Amino acid sequence: MNAEIISVGTELLLGNIVNTNARDLSVMLSELGINVYWHSVVGDNPERLTETLRTAKARADIIITTGGLGPTCDDLTKQTVARAFGLELYFDERAEREIEDFFRRGSLIMTENNRQQAYLPVGCTPFYNTCGTAPGCAFFAQGTHVLILPGPPKECLAMMRCGGLDYLRSLSGEQIYSRNIHLFGLGESYVESLLRERMNTLENPTLAPYAREVEVRLRVTAKASSREAAEEMMAPVIDEVCRKLGDCVYGVDTDTLENTVLGLLSAQGKTVSAAESCTGGLIAKRVTDLPGASSVFLGGVTVYTNEAKRLLLGVDADTLREKSAVSREVAVQLAEKVRGKLGSDFGLGVTGVAGPDSDGIHAVGTVFVSLADGERTYVRELRLSPQYDRGKIRNLAASHALDMLRRRLTNLPVVK
Amino acid sequence: MNAEIISVGTELLLGNIVNTNARDLSVMLSELGINVYWHSVVGDNPERLTETLRTAKARADIIITTGGLGPTCDDLTKQTVARAFGLELYFDERAEREIEDFFRRGSLIMTENNRQQAYLPVGCTPFYNTCGTAPGCAFFAQGTHVLILPGPPKECLAMMRCGGLDYLRSLSGEQIYSRNIHLFGLGESYVESLLRERMNTLENPTLAPYAREVEVRLRVTAKASSREAAEEMMAPVIDEVCRKLGDCVYGVDTDTLENTVLGLLSAQGKTVSAAESCTGGLIAKRVTDLPGASSVFLGGVTVYTNEAKRLLLGVDADTLREKSAVSREVAVQLAEKVRGKLGSDFGLGVTGVAGPDSDGIHAVGTVFVSLADGERTYVRELRLSPQYDRGKIRNLAASHALDMLRRRLTNLPVVK
Repeated sequence: MNAEIISVGTELLLGNIVNTNARDLSVMLSELGINVYWHSVVGDNPERLTETLRTAKARADIIITTGGLGPTCDDLTKQTVARAFGLELYFDERAEREIEDFFRRGSLIMTENNRQQAYLPVGCTPFYNTCGTAPGCAFFAQGTHVLILPGPPKECLAMMRCGGLDYLRSLSGEQIYSRNIHLFGLGESYVESLLRERMNTLENPTLAPYAREVEVRLRVTAKASSREAAEEMMAPVIDEVCRKLGDCVYGVDTDTLENTVLGLLSAQGKTVSAAESCTGGLIAKRVTDLPGASSVFLGGVTVYTNEAKRLLLGVDADTLREKSAVSREVAVQLAEKVRGKLGSDFGLGVTGVAGPDSDGIHAVGTVFVSLADGERTYVRELRLSPQYDRGKIRNLAASHALDMLRRRLTNLPVVK
Repeated sequence: MNAEIISVGTELLLGNIVNTNARDLSVMLSELGINVYWHSVVGDNPERLTETLRTAKARADIIITTGGLGPTCDDLTKQTVARAFGLELYFDERAEREIEDFFRRGSLIMTENNRQQAYLPVGCTPFYNTCGTAPGCAFFAQGTHVLILPGPPKECLAMMRCGGLDYLRSLSGEQIYSRNIHLFGLGESYVESLLRERMNTLENPTLAPYAREVEVRLRVTAKASSREAAEEMMAPVIDEVCRKLGDCVYGVDTDTLENTVLGLLSAQGKTVSAAESCTGGLIAKRVTDLPGASSVFLGGVTVYTNEAKRLLLGVDADTLREKSAVSREVAVQLAEKVRGKLGSDFGLGVTGVAGPDSDGIHAVGTVFVSLADGERTYVRELRLSPQYDRGKIRNLAASHALDMLRRRLTNLPVVK
C-alpha cells in the first residue's frame, strides 16, 4: 500500500511555516511499512484542493490530509474532501460535546463557528481531538482510504497516534510494528557498511538506517498478528544489532541523547552541571527542554569570554594565557570548577572553535569536551569537519559532552 | 505568474528531513510577488518525477526543482527534467572547473562521478555552486520557466539568491523588491486590525503581515524599473508603518531580535550578561548562535535550581523561601547579581513557570523578566497563555528579555 500526504494551508505556500507534519507523518507511515510516494501542499482554495485530491486518488491507496479544519470560513478541507468522494456531512453530537468540554476546560468562550467543526463525512470513523477543537476522521470511499487530520502539529500528531495508526493497522490482516535503535558516534555510511549484508538478508523483520543531524538511528520493523508476536520477532534482531554496534547504542525507543542521560542520572540519584564556552548554553538549553530537568541538572554557566571563565568559575588566568582558551587544560578546569561550584556529582565542560572564524590558533571544528566526576577528569579532543556550519559544530560538541556522561554512567570507557 | 516547487528526495518522503527549502524559497518568491500554488515532494524515482513534472507543467508558469543533483546514480533530477522538456544535456566546462576548484579548496579527492555533475541542459543559464559541487540552472521551454537547484539547503538558498532571483526578476519588465519590518510585542490580529484598511488601499507597493512563532513581520513589496525606484516607493510606506506601530518595530530587514540587540550593544560599546532560570540557557544559546557574540555577551548562568541561584549568584536564601523562586524580587536579584558578577553594563534575568507542570503557586506561563543597568532594575511580569507549550513559553520569555534590553538601548520606556 502507498500513501500521499496532502497538507492544506496558504501559510505553508507563503513560507510562514515549515511542513513538519509531512515529515512526522512520513516517519509513522514508514514505521507501518506504508510507502509514501508523494507529499503535496496546496492553499486554502477549494478548486486547487479538489484538483490535488483528484490526482492523489488516481495514484495513492491512502490519502492523508492535514490542515483546513479550523472554524473560519477559509477552512474548507472537510467539505471539499467529502464532496470529492461523494459523501454528505452529518452533525456528530459527541464531537460537539468534546468541543464544548475543550472550551470549558480552558475557560474560553465558544462561538457558533466552533460548533460547525462537529460536522463529519457520513460513514466515517471519527477521531476526537484531545488537544484542540477540530475533530478528524477516516473513511473508505471510491477505492481509497482517506484520513483527515488537523493542521496544528500537536493536534495532528496526537490524533494520528490515537486514532490514525489503529485505523491504518486494521487495513492489513497483519499488524506492523517498529522499534528504533539510537546511536551516537558512528557515521551513517560506516553503520551501513557494517550492517549492509545483514540488512539484505532480513525480510521480516526488516532493518534500515536513517540519519539525523548529529546521529544515526536504525529502525527494526516487523509484520505480525499482534504486538507481542512482533516484539518477539524483533528482539533477536535488536540484540544482534546492539551487540554489533556495541556501546555506541545509547537507547532503544528513547527520544534523544539528553533524555537517556537524564534518565540515567535520575535512576542513580546523581546530578550534573555544565560550563560551556563555544556551545554557549546549548547543553543547558537541550537538557532544560525536558520538563523535570531541575532534579538532576543543577545549573550551568555560559563562559563565552575569558573574563567570564575567570569571574564565574575562577579559571586560572595563566592557563588561559599560556594554553589559550581552547585547550585541554582549560577544558579540565571548566568541568572541575563548575562541578565544585555547584556541588554536583558531575561537571561537563566544552571549549572550542565553532566558526565561521578561527581563533587564529586552531582550525574551526577543534573542540575539547570534558567530564569531571570528583576522582578523574576526562577530556576528549574533537576535530570536527571545518565544512560543518556553526550550528552543527555546536550541536555535535554538546552531544559529545552528553555522550561522555552517558558512558561514565553506564561504566563504559569514557574516552575511546 | 505562479510557481510550483518540486522537491526531489526519498529522504523527504521517509521523514528523515523536513522540507525547509520549500518554505525558504516560498518566502523569496512571495517577496518577488510570485504566487506559489503548490509544493510537491517526490522520491528519487524517474517515473514519478516525470509524472510530477507533467502535472506541474500544466498548471504552473514557473517550476523550481530542488534536490537530486548529487553525484550518485540515485540522483536523476537533471536528466529527468531535461527529458521532460525535450532538451539534451551538454558538458559545461566552467562547471567542471568550479567543481575541481571546490575539491581543491577542501583538499578533497574528486571522483569521476563528480565530473558528471557538470552536464547541463542545452540552452540553459547555468548557476555555478559557491558552496557545493552541483551546478544548477534555469531555462525556458514548452511555455514554462524551469529552475533546477541543489538539495542541501545552504547550496539551494545561496544559488537562489545569486542566480535564481535575478533570472526571475528578468522575466518581468518591472523588477520586484521587498523589505521586511520586524515587530515584537504585538499579536498578528492586532497588527492586522490596525493596518487592514491601509493595506487594502495599497497597490504598489503592497503591505502584508506574516506571523512567526513569537513575533510578527510586515512585508512591503514594490514593482519598479530599478532597485532605487522601488526603494523610493517603499520608503514612505515603511515610515508610515513604523510611525503607526511605534516602538514595537525593532528593525527593518534585520534578521532576528538578538541580531538587533547585538548590533545596538556593539555600536554603543556596551556588554550584557544573563541569569536564566526557566529559559535555562536559551538566551545565551540564541545570542551565541551569532558569530562574534563574545565581544558584547560576556557570559551567562543557567540557575535552574534554587541551589544554583544561591551558589552561582548569591541570590538571597530568605527571598527564595519567602517570595519563591518565581517572583519579582528574585528576578531583580538575578539581573543585578549576574551584572555585578561579570562586570557587564547590563544584566538580564528570567524566572518563571514554563510548564507543563505548575510550581504549585503560579499558573504555567507566569514569568518575570528583568533588566539591571546599574542605576535601575526593571521587571516585567508576563502572563503568557498556559495553552502555549513549554518551547513557546521559553522562547517568548527570552524574546521579552531581549526586547527590554533593546528598549533600554534605544531610550524607550523599558516597561510599558
